[in-house]
Amino acid sequence: MVQLAQGRTLVNAAVPVISRAYASASKAAPSKEHHVLSLPDSAFPKGFQVAAAHAGVKKKEGALDLGVLVSTADTPCNAAACFTRNVFKAAPVVVSTKVLEEGNGRVRGFVVNSGCANAVTGSKGMEDAWAMSKKVTDGLAGSSGSPSTGTLVMSTGVIGQHLPIDAITSKIPSLLSSLSGSASSWMSLAKAFMTTDTFPKLRAREFKLGSQTVRIAGIDKGAGMIHPNMGPPHATLLGVVATDASISPKALQSALTYAVDRSFNSITVDGDMSTNDTILCLANGAATSSSGERAQEITEEGNPEEFAVFKEELRSFAEELAQLVVRDGEGATKFVTVRVENGPSYEVSRAVASSVATSSLVKTALYGQDANWGRILCAVGYTNLPAGTISPTSVSVSFIPPKGSPNPTPLQLLTNGEPEPNIDEARGSEILAEEDLEILIDLGVKGGEGAKYWTCDFSHEYVSINADYRS
Amino acid sequence: MVQLAQGRTLVNAAVPVISRAYASASKAAPSKEHHVLSLPDSAFPKGFQVAAAHAGVKKKEGALDLGVLVSTADTPCNAAACFTRNVFKAAPVVVSTKVLEEGNGRVRGFVVNSGCANAVTGSKGMEDAWAMSKKVTDGLAGSSGSPSTGTLVMSTGVIGQHLPIDAITSKIPSLLSSLSGSASSWMSLAKAFMTTDTFPKLRAREFKLGSQTVRIAGIDKGAGMIHPNMGPPHATLLGVVATDASISPKALQSALTYAVDRSFNSITVDGDMSTNDTILCLANGAATSSSGERAQEITEEGNPEEFAVFKEELRSFAEELAQLVVRDGEGATKFVTVRVENGPSYEVSRAVASSVATSSLVKTALYGQDANWGRILCAVGYTNLPAGTISPTSVSVSFIPPKGSPNPTPLQLLTNGEPEPNIDEARGSEILAEEDLEILIDLGVKGGEGAKYWTCDFSHEYVSINADYRS
Repeated sequence: MVQLAQGRTLVNAAVPVISRAYASASKAAPSKEHHVLSLPDSAFPKGFQVAAAHAGVKKKEGALDLGVLVSTADTPCNAAACFTRNVFKAAPVVVSTKVLEEGNGRVRGFVVNSGCANAVTGSKGMEDAWAMSKKVTDGLAGSSGSPSTGTLVMSTGVIGQHLPIDAITSKIPSLLSSLSGSASSWMSLAKAFMTTDTFPKLRAREFKLGSQTVRIAGIDKGAGMIHPNMGPPHATLLGVVATDASISPKALQSALTYAVDRSFNSITVDGDMSTNDTILCLANGAATSSSGERAQEITEEGNPEEFAVFKEELRSFAEELAQLVVRDGEGATKFVTVRVENGPSYEVSRAVASSVATSSLVKTALYGQDANWGRILCAVGYTNLPAGTISPTSVSVSFIPPKGSPNPTPLQLLTNGEPEPNIDEARGSEILAEEDLEILIDLGVKGGEGAKYWTCDFSHEYVSINADYRS
Repeated sequence: MVQLAQGRTLVNAAVPVISRAYASASKAAPSKEHHVLSLPDSAFPKGFQVAAAHAGVKKKEGALDLGVLVSTADTPCNAAACFTRNVFKAAPVVVSTKVLEEGNGRVRGFVVNSGCANAVTGSKGMEDAWAMSKKVTDGLAGSSGSPSTGTLVMSTGVIGQHLPIDAITSKIPSLLSSLSGSASSWMSLAKAFMTTDTFPKLRAREFKLGSQTVRIAGIDKGAGMIHPNMGPPHATLLGVVATDASISPKALQSALTYAVDRSFNSITVDGDMSTNDTILCLANGAATSSSGERAQEITEEGNPEEFAVFKEELRSFAEELAQLVVRDGEGATKFVTVRVENGPSYEVSRAVASSVATSSLVKTALYGQDANWGRILCAVGYTNLPAGTISPTSVSVSFIPPKGSPNPTPLQLLTNGEPEPNIDEARGSEILAEEDLEILIDLGVKGGEGAKYWTCDFSHEYVSINADYRS
């Protein structure tokens, strides 16, 4: 090969380099304050106590970075979990998997730190994760609950750094002496989960299960490195749901796996799946009926109707928690639901929704408030599916304004693969100016299944945050 | 379900919303002027003529937006192509596929427009693509070449808008009357391909093939919506390679498919695969030996040695063209090679390289010049591969400075799954301050196969460009 070296000279004014000039001003993410709710003490499930403290993992003086949740019910606390499928599972993920196994699905509670992920930290990282877990278990030995059960552990923050383990373990005794079931303690625990989050994510509900009223409370965190794919006893998304319902470990895992696929596994901020993603679900059976009696443990086979109610409540609650992560997505100015209808299967619909929700071009167009359906369609078309799965002439796309919008009329963009003539761009801009909106993609298989994915836009602030933050 | 409506009140000063404050200043993409080469007339393959004009697809007066290339050799011009695998194939992709089929791998040349992709344009779009193609074929009917062969067609630009087809077809006769083989005409043709590109992408080489010296010239375009996945007769990446070597259509397709997998299919700017991606390769056999004779057509079976030389030259040339697209990636300040070594197979190594090259968190860290190997490892770990394919304790990661760097020492970050103790962050910053750099990931399978992927960083300017540009 002869490179034409004699020709490789720089060119001057004869071939001017075109420069791009764009006017897009940087838009700041709106305040997320209104997503913080104040809840009464009575909202929280019975038989759980929590505490949080500053142990020094976060540099900022007084910033909460260590928390515990303990079941104080004198019945076993059943547990289920979904962990990241990343090959590089962080030490706390490995240790929590083991704690669940050893306890046959029963645990005392969990300990969590933020500021350091204890991921890719080798054997020292494993020792540290065990040290956190055991310090809590040992500190609870004299109290109520079964001493043979262990403590789950979660960490979130920078990858590849060791925990200040002595600072953490020396703080645990005072943490255990300050346990409380109050709403303010729950809020402190939620803050101890935070990294790049701009607000603490805490929710609680109650619902009827059989003859009982049960409560469910949940905390999660996450704003970046969000594209979870969690499996059972396999998200830096961390989340925990605690309920005073009585449900067997196996039924709890079954309900959690179902709920996580349709909530935490259906959100994306940046398409990056973390080494630490973990969702825990704890059920201690401490709820009582009006006569003061506890319920029998629900199983999938023994109580199909109650199980179905619990599963749907858990899915719905998990969806609300998962959406909070997207709302707080790094630099996000919009919350967008990608709804796919009439796909040949749930899996195909979900794959298409994920492809659109993850597309950088779709997400920057949303930030620019540009009704750019071409990019949406393009992302539908490159979904990794076997040839022939999607028929291009059956696909329709529309924008749906949020509930409560003054003008509820959707905007049809594409019908059966053909663009609508004379698309009302002004109406498109109206809908896209909303903080919440929905992209509806109909794959045209009548009677087929749908799926939803939740995403945010891709902003200047996202780049600023991630060019600076060592995560 | 009873939503705790009474609790859903906004919280005031008691739970302050934490605001993120980041200092990252917006860095402008450096000038790409030095990637424009001046080439002599003699650099270009014999028997091809080209022309370009302003037909009015682009609004800017005088902006080149229409071009043709015609083989004027009195032998058939063999052709091969790789087209996008997107379900929504643009009309020109469908038409070019048909032209290739009808001509049994022989064509007259191609016509290309920029400014409008003629994608998702229904039956009118198909008519328009055929009209462009046929106008060129008809205009050439009286000239040399077989009249039974057709003209390939390519379009790039906005999706979902119709071409100004009358303006295009009425410009074609004058275009055909201005055909020329000069270097300046080739440069004009390269400019007619451009959309958000900041510089025209034109290269040429010569090499020995058997007893002959043959020439190869190539043009490509693309800066965004770049994550091609093209298959034979199946990227808005457009590219064309023309050579005066003599090679059969089948051998040409075989060599092109191999070359495209290792070049255009191994680059990413934003992870979005276009509806229009097309790479064409034309070979007209017009090269002559020193005694003035043309060569026999090379086939894969009949001339294995010469075929091997041609295939490798085509791969290497395609790699150079593909890299230009990444260098001109929207908002790019860096050109990054992700090299994976010692994987269990080429496919696994390529999947890992693609995962790292596409990660938003890796790309923003590169923009921020942060030696954030945690994000690299995280992206290795979430590569979509069967469980057990990658052994976490066998993975090593290092940064390699570019060739010609004053300090050629690489920086080892991770060895066999364990972070290096005392990583030299200053050295990391030095390497990351370079415009070119390489991320080396060793998967630890001794004697295994490797793969390369080329990517750029993710900048504020990327967001500006794509929040504003209707692509």
